[in-house]
Amino acid sequence: MREIVDLNCDMGEGFGQWTLSEAPDEEIMSLISSANIAAGFHAGDPNSMDRVVKLAQTYGVGLGAHPGYNDLQGFGRRYMKTSSEELVNDIVYQIGAIREFGRRHGISLQHVKPHGALYMEAAVNEELSEMIIDTLSKTCGTAIIFCMDISKTYEVAKRVGYPVVREFYADREYDASGSIVFARNVARPKPEDIAEKCVRACKEGVVRTVEGEDIPIEFESICFHSDTPGALAIGRAIRAGLTDAGITIAPAATVLGL
Amino acid sequence: MREIVDLNCDMGEGFGQWTLSEAPDEEIMSLISSANIAAGFHAGDPNSMDRVVKLAQTYGVGLGAHPGYNDLQGFGRRYMKTSSEELVNDIVYQIGAIREFGRRHGISLQHVKPHGALYMEAAVNEELSEMIIDTLSKTCGTAIIFCMDISKTYEVAKRVGYPVVREFYADREYDASGSIVFARNVARPKPEDIAEKCVRACKEGVVRTVEGEDIPIEFESICFHSDTPGALAIGRAIRAGLTDAGITIAPAATVLGL
Amino acid sequence: MREIVDLNCDMGEGFGQWTLSEAPDEEIMSLISSANIAAGFHAGDPNSMDRVVKLAQTYGVGLGAHPGYNDLQGFGRRYMKTSSEELVNDIVYQIGAIREFGRRHGISLQHVKPHGALYMEAAVNEELSEMIIDTLSKTCGTAIIFCMDISKTYEVAKRVGYPVVREFYADREYDASGSIVFARNVARPKPEDIAEKCVRACKEGVVRTVEGEDIPIEFESICFHSDTPGALAIGRAIRAGLTDAGITIAPAATVLGL
Amino acid sequence: MREIVDLNCDMGEGFGQWTLSEAPDEEIMSLISSANIAAGFHAGDPNSMDRVVKLAQTYGVGLGAHPGYNDLQGFGRRYMKTSSEELVNDIVYQIGAIREFGRRHGISLQHVKPHGALYMEAAVNEELSEMIIDTLSKTCGTAIIFCMDISKTYEVAKRVGYPVVREFYADREYDASGSIVFARNVARPKPEDIAEKCVRACKEGVVRTVEGEDIPIEFESICFHSDTPGALAIGRAIRAGLTDAGITIAPAATVLGL
Repeated sequence: MREIVDLNCDMGEGFGQWTLSEAPDEEIMSLISSANIAAGFHAGDPNSMDRVVKLAQTYGVGLGAHPGYNDLQGFGRRYMKTSSEELVNDIVYQIGAIREFGRRHGISLQHVKPHGALYMEAAVNEELSEMIIDTLSKTCGTAIIFCMDISKTYEVAKRVGYPVVREFYADREYDASGSIVFARNVARPKPEDIAEKCVRACKEGVVRTVEGEDIPIEFESICFHSDTPGALAIGRAIRAGLTDAGITIAPAATVLGL
Repeated sequence: MREIVDLNCDMGEGFGQWTLSEAPDEEIMSLISSANIAAGFHAGDPNSMDRVVKLAQTYGVGLGAHPGYNDLQGFGRRYMKTSSEELVNDIVYQIGAIREFGRRHGISLQHVKPHGALYMEAAVNEELSEMIIDTLSKTCGTAIIFCMDISKTYEVAKRVGYPVVREFYADREYDASGSIVFARNVARPKPEDIAEKCVRACKEGVVRTVEGEDIPIEFESICFHSDTPGALAIGRAIRAGLTDAGITIAPAATVLGL
Repeated sequence: MREIVDLNCDMGEGFGQWTLSEAPDEEIMSLISSANIAAGFHAGDPNSMDRVVKLAQTYGVGLGAHPGYNDLQGFGRRYMKTSSEELVNDIVYQIGAIREFGRRHGISLQHVKPHGALYMEAAVNEELSEMIIDTLSKTCGTAIIFCMDISKTYEVAKRVGYPVVREFYADREYDASGSIVFARNVARPKPEDIAEKCVRACKEGVVRTVEGEDIPIEFESICFHSDTPGALAIGRAIRAGLTDAGITIAPAATVLGL
Repeated sequence: MREIVDLNCDMGEGFGQWTLSEAPDEEIMSLISSANIAAGFHAGDPNSMDRVVKLAQTYGVGLGAHPGYNDLQGFGRRYMKTSSEELVNDIVYQIGAIREFGRRHGISLQHVKPHGALYMEAAVNEELSEMIIDTLSKTCGTAIIFCMDISKTYEVAKRVGYPVVREFYADREYDASGSIVFARNVARPKPEDIAEKCVRACKEGVVRTVEGEDIPIEFESICFHSDTPGALAIGRAIRAGLTDAGITIAPAATVLGL
């Protein structure tokens, strides 16, 4: 049973005049313990980064870089065939930008979570995961890498002893293989049901799949998405549900005991 | 008389498949003492940044961020009407990126030199110069700001006691007001003449203007441009000329005694 | 008194995952007679352009290109110091893109309306207005140029006999000079008041300024903005108000009798 | 035996301050009969497009759009996983831009040649080839599609009767399967050898593979690349070789008898 858990959310996913989330950043920040902040490649610009990093400092939220493919139009959701060396350079660039805003606002980097297609590519690409973690271990010391339980990223991090956090996806469905189901047409679950799912995952270590069976699930952080419709209500329900169940919500570094 | 001087050059001004300079980066790096590295807004990409920052470390060259307007097509040479707050956010972003590659390759940030139209805007915009220096003093500690002698940037830096370096432009002409003449059609000077001009500026503290008079000039760093035709020969001539004249070439931080 | 008027709106101002307007494009299209479609430089991407151009064809709305500065982050609202030749090339590029989607969906180009800072720059820059109109007269034949009544663009178009439409800004305030007041803090007017303002402008040829006086106003098209809060209600009120007052709403080309 | 052949080259592959080819555009234009002009996604900007399209008109060269993936940093050489619908929208956008500059300079669109990874993707993706050709047949009438002999693009074009041209790659090596070998380390052939290869391909319909065997080859156009080192000498040698052998060089539309 998990008595302490991180609650993370992607933040700052606008660009210029555009925003993605209907929920105000400040409200979301008051609910979560770790923020993955877009760094300009798939979303985010220097102005949004400055604002959101400052909010993370204000609310005591763990600061995370959320590097993505350099594809603003595709929101980093389109795979691009490129070398691991180039992708790591892209990641270094984006981490540096986030970290500098952190320096400005007095908050240091807690974690790195690749975004979208880059997250999925790292999950299946062992070479890429190795290069990311090798680079992080040189440049970011103890910055935690976020990933899925079933992923090359997790395997590599455990093998080399790099700090790693596995995510449980509150607003996504799982199938029997433990994979996320990217069905877009499923009935939208109620916030209370999502909260209940999270509490059960913490207390019993299982999740009900789309096929209707329970499968075991391991994680240190719960993720929900600020662009999911009703994100604010979902975040509030999760926070309330976990708290009522006696589960502490804390930044990933605290959960790992770093 | 100046017995020690910095020699700086803009570096990494390509993008993707494109390069700007005919001179190999490695050759230029072996000649200079400070490098201003493009950070992705007007030129440069994560791959070029990684490569050039590593070269700076290899050659013991002072690492500088060279932030510019977010205008790749215009190479950062087009003024954009935007708020000082936004420009400072752009600068923070670019500095962070350069610094992260520095961390990767074991070299810390020595200086910041705005590029092109942003450099010229800061020179005349006191508010912008104040905000840049105020931000640098919080985030970059002792990172030196590069500017022209006649500029708001220099005035502000001196007033608040922030480390500052003034540049002498080896491959540009001066007029009687001490301003740079951006004439494109002037006869191209020989490398030896440029070198002689630099030596004289160091030893006598004067430069001959386009009008034919000598004016006093103060500086701590000599700048030449890697995209000036014949840049490599110019750099070699300057280095040889200064060395032959007994003038030490050293990174800006050394020149300032930091 | 004006018995027929065009009603235009900026459309397709999203990018990738992002939208700007809360109002569905299809609803707005059903209300207006001319659409100014973003062409990828300040907003819009090939997917949005394809979709919105098709909607214009479906609803019998006049197809307009809405070229802007190449500044996605600044939404084309930041002036960039660049040559008129370069700006005209940017405009040609964007017009071509819009026209090609028009060809795909069986609708030809009716008009061109520069966006944001480019619209304002053309309004005061006679050389730019001349070059735009000269280029349009060669490439676009009868495509109407949209502008403000008080503008170099209008002067040039009238002088050379190029088809031109002046806009009345329904959701902006005027001052005594006939200029638009870009106050952001003014009380938000009710849709019915905006509609009443439009009807009065058509019937009496005057508008009440922020100073409280009536000034004469001339125009052939009424503009409202799809990103103004409550845009849909405003558009409906204007349409209803004009129709009730016996004023015909028709595409700009029809208003001009082309 | 082929007595008339097109000679095509990718043109305008710079961006802003950057150029890719060492050969002056005007010199290359004087040698070729069809130009594939970059349209801003992988290379090219409105200024280069205006200049190069005008050159095509001046030299009587067939005007071609050279649409690519929206990946300036990767020069359109990186595959991006995206839907055929989106890719076709990207292509429509880029064709429109090229065509508008053609309209400005009095030259109509002759052909479309996808660039880099998009060309290779169309070659193996039947759905994409079908959608491209279906769209071209609606918007571009007789604009010829360029492709490889062994490609889905060619199969689809022949099946539906759309005008198509197959390319022979003068400055690339073939293997026994008829595929291009992208070896970067091969000895650089002499211009005269390349010319001889082209003449033999025209007269005998065969090419010598890297394995040393002759294979049959069918084509209507010969392609060389303006960024191949020595491109100007290669172009001159091909032109001289073909002419000396009595083979006429003419735009693709002429070769097809359109």
